[in-house]
Amino acid sequence: MTATTVDSPVLATDWLARAREVAEVLAGDAAERDAAGRTPVAEVRLLKESGLVTLLGSRAAGGGGQDWSTALDVVRTVSRADGSVGQLLGYHYLWFWAARFFGTEGQIRLLEEEAIRGTLFYSGALNPRDKDMAAVDRGDSLVINGRKSFASGSGLSDRTFLGAALPDGRPAFVIAESTAPGLVYHHDWDNMGQRLTESGTITVTDLEVPWTAALGFVDKELVSSVYSSLSILTLQQIMANLYQGIAEGALSAAAGYTRTQTRPWPYGGDPKDSACEEWYVLEHYGDFQSRLWATGALVESTNAALSDALHDPRPAMTPQRRGELAVRISAAKQRTIIEGLDVCTRMFDVMGARATSGKYRFDRFWRNLRTHSLHDPVAYKKREVGQYALMGQLPRPTFYS
Amino acid sequence: MTATTVDSPVLATDWLARAREVAEVLAGDAAERDAAGRTPVAEVRLLKESGLVTLLGSRAAGGGGQDWSTALDVVRTVSRADGSVGQLLGYHYLWFWAARFFGTEGQIRLLEEEAIRGTLFYSGALNPRDKDMAAVDRGDSLVINGRKSFASGSGLSDRTFLGAALPDGRPAFVIAESTAPGLVYHHDWDNMGQRLTESGTITVTDLEVPWTAALGFVDKELVSSVYSSLSILTLQQIMANLYQGIAEGALSAAAGYTRTQTRPWPYGGDPKDSACEEWYVLEHYGDFQSRLWATGALVESTNAALSDALHDPRPAMTPQRRGELAVRISAAKQRTIIEGLDVCTRMFDVMGARATSGKYRFDRFWRNLRTHSLHDPVAYKKREVGQYALMGQLPRPTFYS
Amino acid sequence: MTATTVDSPVLATDWLARAREVAEVLAGDAAERDAAGRTPVAEVRLLKESGLVTLLGSRAAGGGGQDWSTALDVVRTVSRADGSVGQLLGYHYLWFWAARFFGTEGQIRLLEEEAIRGTLFYSGALNPRDKDMAAVDRGDSLVINGRKSFASGSGLSDRTFLGAALPDGRPAFVIAESTAPGLVYHHDWDNMGQRLTESGTITVTDLEVPWTAALGFVDKELVSSVYSSLSILTLQQIMANLYQGIAEGALSAAAGYTRTQTRPWPYGGDPKDSACEEWYVLEHYGDFQSRLWATGALVESTNAALSDALHDPRPAMTPQRRGELAVRISAAKQRTIIEGLDVCTRMFDVMGARATSGKYRFDRFWRNLRTHSLHDPVAYKKREVGQYALMGQLPRPTFYS
Amino acid sequence: MTATTVDSPVLATDWLARAREVAEVLAGDAAERDAAGRTPVAEVRLLKESGLVTLLGSRAAGGGGQDWSTALDVVRTVSRADGSVGQLLGYHYLWFWAARFFGTEGQIRLLEEEAIRGTLFYSGALNPRDKDMAAVDRGDSLVINGRKSFASGSGLSDRTFLGAALPDGRPAFVIAESTAPGLVYHHDWDNMGQRLTESGTITVTDLEVPWTAALGFVDKELVSSVYSSLSILTLQQIMANLYQGIAEGALSAAAGYTRTQTRPWPYGGDPKDSACEEWYVLEHYGDFQSRLWATGALVESTNAALSDALHDPRPAMTPQRRGELAVRISAAKQRTIIEGLDVCTRMFDVMGARATSGKYRFDRFWRNLRTHSLHDPVAYKKREVGQYALMGQLPRPTFYS
Repeated sequence: MTATTVDSPVLATDWLARAREVAEVLAGDAAERDAAGRTPVAEVRLLKESGLVTLLGSRAAGGGGQDWSTALDVVRTVSRADGSVGQLLGYHYLWFWAARFFGTEGQIRLLEEEAIRGTLFYSGALNPRDKDMAAVDRGDSLVINGRKSFASGSGLSDRTFLGAALPDGRPAFVIAESTAPGLVYHHDWDNMGQRLTESGTITVTDLEVPWTAALGFVDKELVSSVYSSLSILTLQQIMANLYQGIAEGALSAAAGYTRTQTRPWPYGGDPKDSACEEWYVLEHYGDFQSRLWATGALVESTNAALSDALHDPRPAMTPQRRGELAVRISAAKQRTIIEGLDVCTRMFDVMGARATSGKYRFDRFWRNLRTHSLHDPVAYKKREVGQYALMGQLPRPTFYS
Repeated sequence: MTATTVDSPVLATDWLARAREVAEVLAGDAAERDAAGRTPVAEVRLLKESGLVTLLGSRAAGGGGQDWSTALDVVRTVSRADGSVGQLLGYHYLWFWAARFFGTEGQIRLLEEEAIRGTLFYSGALNPRDKDMAAVDRGDSLVINGRKSFASGSGLSDRTFLGAALPDGRPAFVIAESTAPGLVYHHDWDNMGQRLTESGTITVTDLEVPWTAALGFVDKELVSSVYSSLSILTLQQIMANLYQGIAEGALSAAAGYTRTQTRPWPYGGDPKDSACEEWYVLEHYGDFQSRLWATGALVESTNAALSDALHDPRPAMTPQRRGELAVRISAAKQRTIIEGLDVCTRMFDVMGARATSGKYRFDRFWRNLRTHSLHDPVAYKKREVGQYALMGQLPRPTFYS
Repeated sequence: MTATTVDSPVLATDWLARAREVAEVLAGDAAERDAAGRTPVAEVRLLKESGLVTLLGSRAAGGGGQDWSTALDVVRTVSRADGSVGQLLGYHYLWFWAARFFGTEGQIRLLEEEAIRGTLFYSGALNPRDKDMAAVDRGDSLVINGRKSFASGSGLSDRTFLGAALPDGRPAFVIAESTAPGLVYHHDWDNMGQRLTESGTITVTDLEVPWTAALGFVDKELVSSVYSSLSILTLQQIMANLYQGIAEGALSAAAGYTRTQTRPWPYGGDPKDSACEEWYVLEHYGDFQSRLWATGALVESTNAALSDALHDPRPAMTPQRRGELAVRISAAKQRTIIEGLDVCTRMFDVMGARATSGKYRFDRFWRNLRTHSLHDPVAYKKREVGQYALMGQLPRPTFYS
Repeated sequence: MTATTVDSPVLATDWLARAREVAEVLAGDAAERDAAGRTPVAEVRLLKESGLVTLLGSRAAGGGGQDWSTALDVVRTVSRADGSVGQLLGYHYLWFWAARFFGTEGQIRLLEEEAIRGTLFYSGALNPRDKDMAAVDRGDSLVINGRKSFASGSGLSDRTFLGAALPDGRPAFVIAESTAPGLVYHHDWDNMGQRLTESGTITVTDLEVPWTAALGFVDKELVSSVYSSLSILTLQQIMANLYQGIAEGALSAAAGYTRTQTRPWPYGGDPKDSACEEWYVLEHYGDFQSRLWATGALVESTNAALSDALHDPRPAMTPQRRGELAVRISAAKQRTIIEGLDVCTRMFDVMGARATSGKYRFDRFWRNLRTHSLHDPVAYKKREVGQYALMGQLPRPTFYS
């Protein structure tokens, strides 16, 4: 695709075609960038220029006018080529929607307009397991201090979603300018996978924001609803799409290699002229594809259910519906992780020894998926689904369910 | 449900509700009938009285006017309670559609009208691995002789679909009255699973049928199309629904038992008051449910694609579309088998030793699924999908793909 | 082998050869007996006549003079042919050793002599989850009343090991004549697997035994040691050998069938003249055999360690050694279950649909293994090994570890 | 351990203790060296100074006098800490034994003496899939030219085993001084795993060696025996020990991390004070350990069988014995790979997200195992064992079986 994208698509299928174009560009040097640990500045620019970052914005405000089903499919598509960029885009969509999750009508309008006008890229600093980000009331403003690890997209974004806590325990969610003086990015992200996500530590020092910037507060009182708690489900389902995308990307990369590079095995009986005719090669690919089609079908049906939930009129969101959606998402997430890791490991069996050469960095699929899929334990996803399957219990909303 | 069913539903959801009612009746004595090996005469009658057997018939002709997507869902629903009856119903739908697959316009009209008027139940004798069913031209009529094993529904049906071969190798597909004198049912079905399907041997002796009864023949010439070859895919996808249903039935039966019978394990640390609170119990059920949701999602999306293919105008069926549908169905079938067997085996781990008591016959789920899933080798399903995933190759239509 | 066996072997290898002869006899009608649910009266007689029942007895007293390593290997060998008889023999060995586990020197001598002289066959009624078998002190004697389920070998044995509890909670282990008037066998064993083990309920009514028959009591005081707690480990390892044997028997039966009955699959490409040349068939058998060799190696090394523990001078048994042996046995048991069930399920994939015929009853391997492997939950075996692997913790001795 | 090791141990247990000391040193900076891709010059020196390199030498000649069983156990031990160094040591042992595999009595004596006197370290260049290493007869000498990839230990060794082919196809195996002018090391090894093995390309240009240096040639005629073909089995079993060691190292590293770093999960119910009390953590570790005990038991029993075969008098080696050993080794290799990869992947589930930090490089276990386990396809190992399990066929000796 050209660097400067002109018109935005209208149809979802066209948006997906655009996402595939972006993915193709990303795939071109994904291995090289992974090796170099190169901060994805150009790649975020590409996301902006492609129009993908405003895909969820209403058409009235100049956005793409697409629903979450399409957004999630775009995340999956981009993740096929580059798990890091897929993650950044997925998180961007989440925070782009932050005002809708937590904000007032006024905040929704204002933030969307600003986001679309500026083609803003979002990131967040929220890790619930770091407890020390605190907000203090200073009359008209809030002053925030603290520290968050795993702040993906740090320093790459235009706006940063900050999760702080008021002294009385209420959450103060604020969208800050990423270049605000109080924000310091430690650039300490050095991980085995998702290496280009800039998920390092962020410290916030005396960041002052007006109360009006605190999402959902009216007269310093927090207005909240079941809808807010969909934010967690959305994040979890973004992950399912990320994992599904990484696994599909792995399968596709492996197949490309086997088709063109893998030599048939001449020993052991029943030799073939081409690796593509070898029984175990075909059986493996059939197994991989079947597994990923099954997880993909679950991801797709769950995407549709979540998208409906996010776009339906708010009163339609009941705790029961929310809970059933949650367990379904838990299932999608765990299955993509389990099957995905299996594909990312066993694909080498049908590529052969030379595919381990450093120049390919085919291990990045496993490293990326393995790293991010530890966000919260798969075991608890199983437990959660089990409580529903066995007793019809719905998960209590937490930061992870 | 009452024995005599009054009005037929209109909506698909109502048909599914009816299927659930039928399933509930079947579940009541499924274990007992499995133990006794009781021929499902009453159960076939129930299928007729419920209206399910004419569900696929056009509303104009007095049928249910439903599409294949609903029919397949009904098969899955009934199979939850009784794999044998689910199989019989699924096969019935296939042969109910036989005239559409292979017949002329006139045959389609005639056979549908007859089927709906008489609430006819269909079975078939077709096993392609038995090669000795021969049809001979006798002027205006064909005379058929031969033998087929695995003729499910033998002696239970009103009409039997017979697959014979003409001397020149062309297939002669005939729908015969099941009580025709030339048909002998050997009642030799004695198997570890699907015990109530009456899948024994059938011998045909000097069965004479008019040429007009040979599906698709016009002036003794066979008219055929890509659409005909959808019959195999339909059969395969019926199986996927059968397997998915059996596995879901197993999960549901197991959960019911665990909830009410399983005692918590008092040794080994971390004791709970109820088995339903034990970590491994919850984890297992979550794992089972997640796996079956994934296979279920694949089955559903494949049902929809097949249903579209079956109901779309015939020119819409191209070899490419047929091939892509075929590999997708191969994937659905293999995944339901693999995950289903796993659930049917491991479910005992969360029920406990007393669940092996003969009175429950909980092993019937494994036995049923294990038996029917050997219809054709899973390994070749993987191979077939692999050829597509790796090289974009489509399967050559055979009796199994 | 002839019905009346003459001389006993001397070498372990000869005892194993004899066990293989017994297994061959048992295999001859194992399927038929499973179908008929025939009480293994003749089979227990065969075990006696073969000399296997006194294999563990000291040569001085007329026994076989073999160690536990051989006894366990014999259990595995017999279980290949018939899981039920393998279980009965394994349990017999356990109770044959009961005096050594729990008794005084005098009881050991007396009971061994009696057992060898009479070629006695042992069974037990001990299920720790049934709490209501009570022993009451009546001066010189104890009077026992109560009920136990899962009393394998009920009515088949000459002696029955009874586990009762004194009012103060101390265990009173008694070996009673199985024909004693107070013992009633309910013959209510009707299970999906291990169908020929007569594992029904036993009730004990006013059974009076002298205090001297209570194992390990001296002047009504219980003498106990770490060695006693090896009884549980021995039982658990008997199970590991039972499971390994069943799985090996399944593999062997499957291979015999595939070699002689399975037809090659003619569809799907790459056809072969024989099923034994088909890639997926060979791959499956290689996978099965490799898995069972791995579990077999673990079972064998654990057999050796347990045998040493049982035959070493008693002071050599420390809690540490006992604990490390326990976790190793837990590992062996769980691996044989998991891999065994897998083989018993997937073996059908390489036999084909006709192998499900009722006449073969090939499902009995799965049913037998699935049934007995629920004795105590695999999940707790994993937990127990995990506590050791992670923290070096040893399991607290219970009735199951 | 001290840099300069004094006395060599006598007992196998002491050699293993020494191997553990070496492993401890290696573990100290294994992650760092993996990150840096540092050539293991110091590590090879450590192997020499520890005496491990001459462990297999006869005591008469000043060697350790140990058997192969111990050598393989040492490889496994060292591989726990550092897969690369474990591989180098394993290969060294193979080539140390080269004269015994292929040489004459005189060559055996000479080369052993030289190896022990100089504490020589061996490597090899043999990849059978590179066909272009050619030896030409120049009267008293051979002149070798060609190229081999995957020449592990290139430039690190004192002697290099070269596999060339004479014009008539006979193999000419030569042990050359690694610093000989004709040998050029390309230092082009850049791989995702086993990064420190220096397994790059070697080119040989006009290397002239006397005919007496060609192993097994007498008067230019090649003397060979079944024993020679044990070299392949030895290499394969070295790999099984390497994989087992890597997997055990992974488990140990993971457990260390979980014990000290992993935080318990506070959400989802049933919270614990420590991650080590969490059910899923314990269950995973129990599963990991049980799997690795099973593969370990198979590796050990196969080590013993191979060691016997290597040390027994040569006439004891029959094709039947060789074949049965081969399939057993194939099983051991495949099981260590499959279970090992599973442990190396799932161990992260019980360490948590922070364990993916680049500083730990815990992914190296998966990368190392995944890379080397592609030496030859696992699928063919299954096939080979399957041919034996199903039909009693023994593998034809090749470069891989």
